Amino acid sequence: MQFIKYLTLGVALSVGNINADANESIVDETQIETAKQLVQTALKSDLGFQIVESLTTEVGPRLAGSEAEKRARAWGKELGEELGFDRVSVEEFTMPFWDRGELELSLTSPYQQALYGTALGGAAPSKKNINADVVYFRDIHALMGVAEGQLKGKIAFVDGDLMVKSQTGAGYGQANQRRRVGWQHAERGKASALMVRSVGSDSHRFPHTGMMSKNDDKWASIPVIAISNPDADHLRRLHNLGKPMSVELSSSSKWKGEVNSGNVILDLVGSETPEEIVLIGGHLDSWDLGTGAVDDGAGVAITTAAAALISKLPKRPKRTIRVVMFGAEEVGLLGARAYAKKHEDNLKNHVLATESDFGAQTIWQLVSNVNSEANPLIDEIGKVLSPLGIVRGGSEVPGGGPDIIPLAAKNVPTIRLNQNGMDYFDLHHTPDDTLDKIDPEELAQNVAAYAAAIYLAADSDVDFRKPLP
Amino acid sequence: MQFIKYLTLGVALSVGNINADANESIVDETQIETAKQLVQTALKSDLGFQIVESLTTEVGPRLAGSEAEKRARAWGKELGEELGFDRVSVEEFTMPFWDRGELELSLTSPYQQALYGTALGGAAPSKKNINADVVYFRDIHALMGVAEGQLKGKIAFVDGDLMVKSQTGAGYGQANQRRRVGWQHAERGKASALMVRSVGSDSHRFPHTGMMSKNDDKWASIPVIAISNPDADHLRRLHNLGKPMSVELSSSSKWKGEVNSGNVILDLVGSETPEEIVLIGGHLDSWDLGTGAVDDGAGVAITTAAAALISKLPKRPKRTIRVVMFGAEEVGLLGARAYAKKHEDNLKNHVLATESDFGAQTIWQLVSNVNSEANPLIDEIGKVLSPLGIVRGGSEVPGGGPDIIPLAAKNVPTIRLNQNGMDYFDLHHTPDDTLDKIDPEELAQNVAAYAAAIYLAADSDVDFRKPLP
Repeated sequence: MQFIKYLTLGVALSVGNINADANESIVDETQIETAKQLVQTALKSDLGFQIVESLTTEVGPRLAGSEAEKRARAWGKELGEELGFDRVSVEEFTMPFWDRGELELSLTSPYQQALYGTALGGAAPSKKNINADVVYFRDIHALMGVAEGQLKGKIAFVDGDLMVKSQTGAGYGQANQRRRVGWQHAERGKASALMVRSVGSDSHRFPHTGMMSKNDDKWASIPVIAISNPDADHLRRLHNLGKPMSVELSSSSKWKGEVNSGNVILDLVGSETPEEIVLIGGHLDSWDLGTGAVDDGAGVAITTAAAALISKLPKRPKRTIRVVMFGAEEVGLLGARAYAKKHEDNLKNHVLATESDFGAQTIWQLVSNVNSEANPLIDEIGKVLSPLGIVRGGSEVPGGGPDIIPLAAKNVPTIRLNQNGMDYFDLHHTPDDTLDKIDPEELAQNVAAYAAAIYLAADSDVDFRKPLP
Repeated sequence: MQFIKYLTLGVALSVGNINADANESIVDETQIETAKQLVQTALKSDLGFQIVESLTTEVGPRLAGSEAEKRARAWGKELGEELGFDRVSVEEFTMPFWDRGELELSLTSPYQQALYGTALGGAAPSKKNINADVVYFRDIHALMGVAEGQLKGKIAFVDGDLMVKSQTGAGYGQANQRRRVGWQHAERGKASALMVRSVGSDSHRFPHTGMMSKNDDKWASIPVIAISNPDADHLRRLHNLGKPMSVELSSSSKWKGEVNSGNVILDLVGSETPEEIVLIGGHLDSWDLGTGAVDDGAGVAITTAAAALISKLPKRPKRTIRVVMFGAEEVGLLGARAYAKKHEDNLKNHVLATESDFGAQTIWQLVSNVNSEANPLIDEIGKVLSPLGIVRGGSEVPGGGPDIIPLAAKNVPTIRLNQNGMDYFDLHHTPDDTLDKIDPEELAQNVAAYAAAIYLAADSDVDFRKPLP
């Protein structure tokens, strides 16, 4: 990782008089000027891209709980040290490990054809090769109507529709129902296995994996397989032609007991109120099919690079800036929950939190959920970000990112720098989530926005925290 | 296939006075008017799309020599009969069968990661699991310099560059060298296996298969595997970081003896000079990874639909229009060679030939290679096609399409309706060559151009044939 150290030498900032003209306003001129210089420096820097290139190349895919995720923690720790963070630590936790195993999947009637599929997270193995007739359901609602035992000895296939591409990712939650709960209905019908149309907006021959939901603390007891959108189209056409279909399936995915995961924590210690924490981050784990460039190597890179640029200022901001590389996000926000639990007594000092976990395209909107008296500062941040094409959105928008949910639930204030998600669900959880999908200039815009926003939040006296409800 | 018959009923043409005003000019007004009506009818018809949808859905992938290709011949015959062609036949031939088998491929050092690869056509199986160090070659020229025995016990990886996207597919021939002849150099080095960067312009996690070249009538004796462009990028980055790499590989692809293939021939018999043949077509076989929608279901559909629309005219054109669905194109133009051989004595009556085999995007150019005295008619055809956005290109351009090569070599005149190939090498020979990639409106533009051009050529007295050299 030597090259990262080398590259950061070039980006030391020239601003030397931070807070020299501090006055009574919510943010002073020098702070604004420093934030603007951070934007300019970030736009010229390729540090963010270097970080995500290093993570995806030197570590590769990083399934939650795997040996690869452990190597990623070592990578994150080394990166934090090389970049000169003041404190670097790893906080481990235990989790149940689900392994994808191997899948063989093909259409066997009306003719032999390979199907491109992958097991969904939490799926059980097939006890032996399953070769069974397919029962077609147009959508999850049709499957929900299935009677007990109605699918005995069959493979259920639940179709659906291609997700519409959108800036916000609208439609994911709804489409995701077939992935999340389809298995419960297939099991009620006593199906041997379930296939679902992938949840994605692309028309490429890639399945989209992702976690299923538990039901009464139980995981699926049958194989559950997502197939690519073109494969789902194909089965739909055969169904519409009235062709009986059968599928052969063999899957070894299964739960494999407790393992270790962990969060990597990099701190820039505040110069005046170090106990107050502005938390940013992404998640270090990825699904195993791609190399987790967009989800969420990008988020790790954006937030780490932003903090690293701030660290080159002559003086640390007043508050502590904490970068958390969360472990085991994909399998149920396990790292986020572990962090919230471990730091339970100190969450009152988490003055603001946000995560980057929606890809690597440009940021277009700043939303917040802070004490209303702090909104004028968020508005000031919005003005600094405006030349980056970022508009100020709502000021009562819950969120902050998936791994921030457990913190927000404990009253930690949040902002979010919303990224353009137009292409996100083309790549999401597929083998195609690789480094080539990231545009270095778009990534640099993200780093610029985080650097400016987080600097201004961390160097402020404004209290974002809301009174406890 | 009943739906095709139903749909064609709607497109019967209203022109009733063909050749009523025949005069001394190279093409008469009624012919021009009929050709223009064919264009309009074709643009409103979805017959082409219905054909390629039927082929890809009802037959699926169609590897040369396979049971699936046999089903495709039955499909083609039935289609020709339903569409009302005057003569429908299948001409079988024998060929050696290469089977892809199964491949397992992963990076094992510096860490475990699946690689997305596929065997190249003609590759040998691995005798057992191969787990070997990788020797990196920046391009095929570097591999060509390898000394005898230099790669003993190693897996060679020949990198290269992403093909530049272009309208014409320029760059394919050159890039293709690593796929065609790489194995000969790897074998000289005594490598255990060869991996090559896929020949394609996409950055998706799909390998591009394709045939290798024989050397002195011998095929490769080692496994030869194409890996996706993002995987090749990944190996390049690891190599550039100085990381030693090893790969585990197991492949069962192999030659399996002689089998049957065949060409399907659909004729509209000429009304005045039936012995003279205007030959059009596409190839019926496809690679097995996708469903052969773009390569070359589209070509079969475009040319069959164009002839079917012409068949709805009140009178057959003067010359015979022959649609050939060639077998076994992908593995060495075997159907084309069989056709040329079988019809050797009658090639003098093949007055013009052309194939559609470059995808499904719009046609932008008409080129020809005919008797110079026939150029004015080709120019007239160009004028009729002009409203479709088609320009007249060169008049001494050899070609006509891959399956026309053996005919052109025997002095059969050719034209070619060049398609926009900008996206062609994104999909070419990948699992992603599926129906969803075809835009029905672009396909209809192709049908319109073929219908008008072939009608005018077949209803003409102009002789396209050149004197024998």
